[in-house]
Amino acid sequence: MDSDSVAMAELHGKMHKQETVCIFGTGDFGRSLGLRLLQSGYNVVYGSRDPKNSLLLPKGSKVMAHAAAAGEAHVIFVAVQREHYGFLSSLASDLEGKVLIDVSNNLRRGLYPESNAEYLSSLVPGVTVVKAFNTISAWALQSGGLDANRQVLICGDRADAKQQVVDIAQSLGFTVLDRGSIRAAAELEDLPLQLFPLWRLPFRIAICLTAFIFFYALTRDVIYERVTNGKDIAFRIMVSLANKVFPIVSLVMLSLCYLPGALAGFLQLYNGTKYRRFPDWLDRWMLCRKQLGLLALAFGFLHVLYTLVIPIRYYVRYRINVYTISLVKDNITYEFDNTAAWRYDSYYSMGILGFGLFVLLGITSLPSVSNSLNWREFSFVQSKLGYMTLLLCTFHTFLYGWDRFLKTSSYRWWMPQAYMLSLVVPCVVLILKLILIMPCVDRKVTRIRQGWERHSKTSSNCRDTKTNQPLMA
Amino acid sequence: MDSDSVAMAELHGKMHKQETVCIFGTGDFGRSLGLRLLQSGYNVVYGSRDPKNSLLLPKGSKVMAHAAAAGEAHVIFVAVQREHYGFLSSLASDLEGKVLIDVSNNLRRGLYPESNAEYLSSLVPGVTVVKAFNTISAWALQSGGLDANRQVLICGDRADAKQQVVDIAQSLGFTVLDRGSIRAAAELEDLPLQLFPLWRLPFRIAICLTAFIFFYALTRDVIYERVTNGKDIAFRIMVSLANKVFPIVSLVMLSLCYLPGALAGFLQLYNGTKYRRFPDWLDRWMLCRKQLGLLALAFGFLHVLYTLVIPIRYYVRYRINVYTISLVKDNITYEFDNTAAWRYDSYYSMGILGFGLFVLLGITSLPSVSNSLNWREFSFVQSKLGYMTLLLCTFHTFLYGWDRFLKTSSYRWWMPQAYMLSLVVPCVVLILKLILIMPCVDRKVTRIRQGWERHSKTSSNCRDTKTNQPLMA
Amino acid sequence: MDSDSVAMAELHGKMHKQETVCIFGTGDFGRSLGLRLLQSGYNVVYGSRDPKNSLLLPKGSKVMAHAAAAGEAHVIFVAVQREHYGFLSSLASDLEGKVLIDVSNNLRRGLYPESNAEYLSSLVPGVTVVKAFNTISAWALQSGGLDANRQVLICGDRADAKQQVVDIAQSLGFTVLDRGSIRAAAELEDLPLQLFPLWRLPFRIAICLTAFIFFYALTRDVIYERVTNGKDIAFRIMVSLANKVFPIVSLVMLSLCYLPGALAGFLQLYNGTKYRRFPDWLDRWMLCRKQLGLLALAFGFLHVLYTLVIPIRYYVRYRINVYTISLVKDNITYEFDNTAAWRYDSYYSMGILGFGLFVLLGITSLPSVSNSLNWREFSFVQSKLGYMTLLLCTFHTFLYGWDRFLKTSSYRWWMPQAYMLSLVVPCVVLILKLILIMPCVDRKVTRIRQGWERHSKTSSNCRDTKTNQPLMA
Repeated sequence: MDSDSVAMAELHGKMHKQETVCIFGTGDFGRSLGLRLLQSGYNVVYGSRDPKNSLLLPKGSKVMAHAAAAGEAHVIFVAVQREHYGFLSSLASDLEGKVLIDVSNNLRRGLYPESNAEYLSSLVPGVTVVKAFNTISAWALQSGGLDANRQVLICGDRADAKQQVVDIAQSLGFTVLDRGSIRAAAELEDLPLQLFPLWRLPFRIAICLTAFIFFYALTRDVIYERVTNGKDIAFRIMVSLANKVFPIVSLVMLSLCYLPGALAGFLQLYNGTKYRRFPDWLDRWMLCRKQLGLLALAFGFLHVLYTLVIPIRYYVRYRINVYTISLVKDNITYEFDNTAAWRYDSYYSMGILGFGLFVLLGITSLPSVSNSLNWREFSFVQSKLGYMTLLLCTFHTFLYGWDRFLKTSSYRWWMPQAYMLSLVVPCVVLILKLILIMPCVDRKVTRIRQGWERHSKTSSNCRDTKTNQPLMA
Repeated sequence: MDSDSVAMAELHGKMHKQETVCIFGTGDFGRSLGLRLLQSGYNVVYGSRDPKNSLLLPKGSKVMAHAAAAGEAHVIFVAVQREHYGFLSSLASDLEGKVLIDVSNNLRRGLYPESNAEYLSSLVPGVTVVKAFNTISAWALQSGGLDANRQVLICGDRADAKQQVVDIAQSLGFTVLDRGSIRAAAELEDLPLQLFPLWRLPFRIAICLTAFIFFYALTRDVIYERVTNGKDIAFRIMVSLANKVFPIVSLVMLSLCYLPGALAGFLQLYNGTKYRRFPDWLDRWMLCRKQLGLLALAFGFLHVLYTLVIPIRYYVRYRINVYTISLVKDNITYEFDNTAAWRYDSYYSMGILGFGLFVLLGITSLPSVSNSLNWREFSFVQSKLGYMTLLLCTFHTFLYGWDRFLKTSSYRWWMPQAYMLSLVVPCVVLILKLILIMPCVDRKVTRIRQGWERHSKTSSNCRDTKTNQPLMA
Repeated sequence: MDSDSVAMAELHGKMHKQETVCIFGTGDFGRSLGLRLLQSGYNVVYGSRDPKNSLLLPKGSKVMAHAAAAGEAHVIFVAVQREHYGFLSSLASDLEGKVLIDVSNNLRRGLYPESNAEYLSSLVPGVTVVKAFNTISAWALQSGGLDANRQVLICGDRADAKQQVVDIAQSLGFTVLDRGSIRAAAELEDLPLQLFPLWRLPFRIAICLTAFIFFYALTRDVIYERVTNGKDIAFRIMVSLANKVFPIVSLVMLSLCYLPGALAGFLQLYNGTKYRRFPDWLDRWMLCRKQLGLLALAFGFLHVLYTLVIPIRYYVRYRINVYTISLVKDNITYEFDNTAAWRYDSYYSMGILGFGLFVLLGITSLPSVSNSLNWREFSFVQSKLGYMTLLLCTFHTFLYGWDRFLKTSSYRWWMPQAYMLSLVVPCVVLILKLILIMPCVDRKVTRIRQGWERHSKTSSNCRDTKTNQPLMA
């Protein structure tokens, strides 16, 4: 290495480090941030209204009045709540030309008309405001990023100011994602206030389905028995009924997770191109397929536990006991039914294998696992194994039903058994998929997904190897 | 892009790449490091005592005597064990002004009075020592960082030297976290020698609790039976007793996981501020809540398996058989007890739902999942769903007990049944939480956590949206 | 911060941002890439054959003919399929001196003799080709890297060109791993086409083992019964037989996961050094130990479910019923067998504890969990707890067998019971391990793994603390 590049490196080194950074605000976030900055080699100056009375600040930092502190640094973190921004307008001349990093969040959404960062920008006209670090918690700063979320989202209008913030964030061990101009600040400020936005629709579907199946089964099983035979079997709500509701909701939601993909395939066939946008409802549906599938898995998990608990239930033991005693008393020989043995064992076996595959799908949905798969692997698991799971679970339900649908006793008050309802959506999905994988249709869909268009004269020259992704996932 | 910036970029490119880096030591780590450096575009020169005899070194690297190798590069990796550092002092003149990267670890803690990096620094006074890469294994270097831990921790006294190490680490695909001056080296060298430091306290609590409950139940069930009735039921240790110990330990540890948060809330109410430090024992307790919860989940998981295995046990089948036969022989009609059916089914249902939520809590504790949640979501899951889990599991235990606590047979040798003991801590936690969420108290706690202080005249102007984190997690 | 460094920072900022980047190709990938570049502050110019007809391009980008677009930027993304590269040779003069980023993938492996990037390089001689972004999907670009794989692999011959690509990738929020010269492009292009390469060998082993044990048990149980007694018990295939096959395959694969480590230890003892390469088959075996273990866990999980489902099976209920009735009718007293109670309960207990530990091993294999462990912790879990799991599961199987191996009825057609076969490999592994941890042998192995060599005069001076990694994992 020649001396020039060493000099460069040293200059480079000095540029990044031993730089002084100012922090307005001595709360938890300000203190955690200051500590982390000090650890990474920055000088830290706190701006405080009451510089004398700041005992908890990290060792090695200085505290001054706001104006004096601002004079020490080019970059100033504003770790103050929005309601207290007022004092900054009086410092306008001290802050002229500085970069102000707005790290604030609000307590609720929609509290103010404009984002905190834009408000700050309008308060102190001469400064450049960069929104950053608001998705990082004081806790993540303290724990040194070893364990916590390491991505800092930033936005702002001036590239040079943003670059300085990027440099600081990277020195602190974070990765940075630039989200564009300061207009994105409102979006960034909403992020920490979100509560599972992608889970809402699937959750509502799950609740509605659960309620519907529950009341359906309640009417058909418990109320019917009460009205017709005057027997009170309400205790069955706790386990028997629950174990009807959970598997049905699980199967329906699993099939709802694969339905939009099949619909999208047919829509593309109909449109003759993949370059036409899907209708909004389909787009939204496709985006929450993972959540639909995971909720279905949760219901399936409960179904497994409720099933396995059957033989230790008081009611089941009572019934078996009574049955055995009646056999003895009436001197009946219990005939072994070979078909029943096949049927029940196949039923359990399909259920177990289906659940096993389902758990595998769930594990590959974990962020760290799905990130370690390439696209082909992920698509193999989620599409091939996913349809295999659906097939096994549907077959499991058919085996449960067997020939019950032929018996009139299955239609009390003209209501078919709940499990029959649960088979409608999965069967539709499986039939649609069967059509889509027929060679003649499959060839067409594949061509469309590789960019071919029915109404276009020239073949598209885009890079298409990966373009079937949003469809197949 | 104008020509100037192209020139800049080229200069920049040259600066980083085609730079020569020297490695002292040709062991596994030295070889893996060299290979990775070569792949990333660096020239690599090995320094070895025996340059002729180095067959396993990566293709493309050069081998020289130490002094000659040192002359080729500005940055030198010292991939040699501390015991062999001696030879470096004789190279002092060749190493003058160089940056030495100490990558060493020790076999045990506390082997030497000062850190290896500080020792190296004292041996060769003219050099700048940077501690780095010691937490990265030869394996992680080989596998290209695709699968392994990608964070390099560094420390050192000179910013420019550290920046050069940062550049190398980033070129190799690692992210870097600067831990401050060379005094932090001792801490960095301890990291690879740690064995689950945060798990120790929870693990000890789990072992003590398990041992206590085991001997308590052993005395009350097995020994009492032996002494009073002369019956040997020691075989029940394997499953029945285990299935008493595991759920009790699980419930107690789950509540111990939420107790410190509640205590902290009361302490803050009492202090009237959140800016006073918690006592040390509470701090330590709060830091290992996640581990307490996960151990509780492990015990709960064993409890589920032990419960589900009940109906295939020899002893259980024997008892049911004997009971059925006695009913037949004595011609007794087995009366169906509707209350018992309700009670047992509710008991199982609460347990299943509680366990289901508990598994959900466990899944959201996985680093990749918790990193994808924002603070509000994480707090919702861990706090709201956590208390719901505790409530369900406590209710499950109450349903198990039902009216047993009224029967004198439950108090053998004046010892209440073990499940009664297990209810003490959860009930305390739930009562404390109930007090804390009463509107009048909740309002006060929220204000305190937003920075309000009882004895302060001015309201704090810090950014507080996130400051209740260490309390609620 | 003095004015110079501010100027530097501003120059630095300008260099990175507001740079113009050109994209050839307006397909899904080109559009997603353009959107992301615009969000990160770049100007984007698309090159298209039909600039008028490009409605779906992101707002803010420009579209021009290829030659004009090339003139606007120094860096050009070629987001076009390889078959359409032809038109680029006609643009040779416009592209002179530019950096072309090849992002293409192929539909299948081995479609072309040379990699797409090398082909591009040969087509347009005056340009520098960098292979990059081909492992990133359009989906990952759209979702902003928040959720998806964030690592970009690049390769290319010129360091300055690569550095420009690194800068762009980092601005887009990705981390970069340099894989060397353009010759690595073929390897990079294979990555997205791989389908679980490390899982192939373990998967084949699992299939072969499953098939062998299945047909063995089928012959011994079902066919033997048919031939000898004329009884059709084929229904037992679904659950009983499956529950013989799964645990056996699980145990054998778990022991196969620990066998290579033990063999490697003996090989090192025999060689007297760790610096001799292992034979290829052992190397390959060692690399897929994690996959072997996870498949064993999957089979173990199925075994657990198949076991827990036993008491609700029709056949089992029938048998218990028939047995109870026969006891009543023949007036036999059911004697309680204390040994049987001990044996079965221990058998279940060992199985549950073994499975619990096995699940723990599985959880620590999740990328995000294993990344948060240091080497010592990982080795403790995978080696110590792994052998404990193997020990518990082997003991569980021995308890299942108990004294059956003494009965001649266990050897139908001279075939021992399947569970006996399953004990061979685990016992071998446990005996080998027992030898390796005997103090005298252990001391030698430890010294060898710390770099000591039997035939070397000088002790190695490498850094060896971590060098036993590939052996112990």
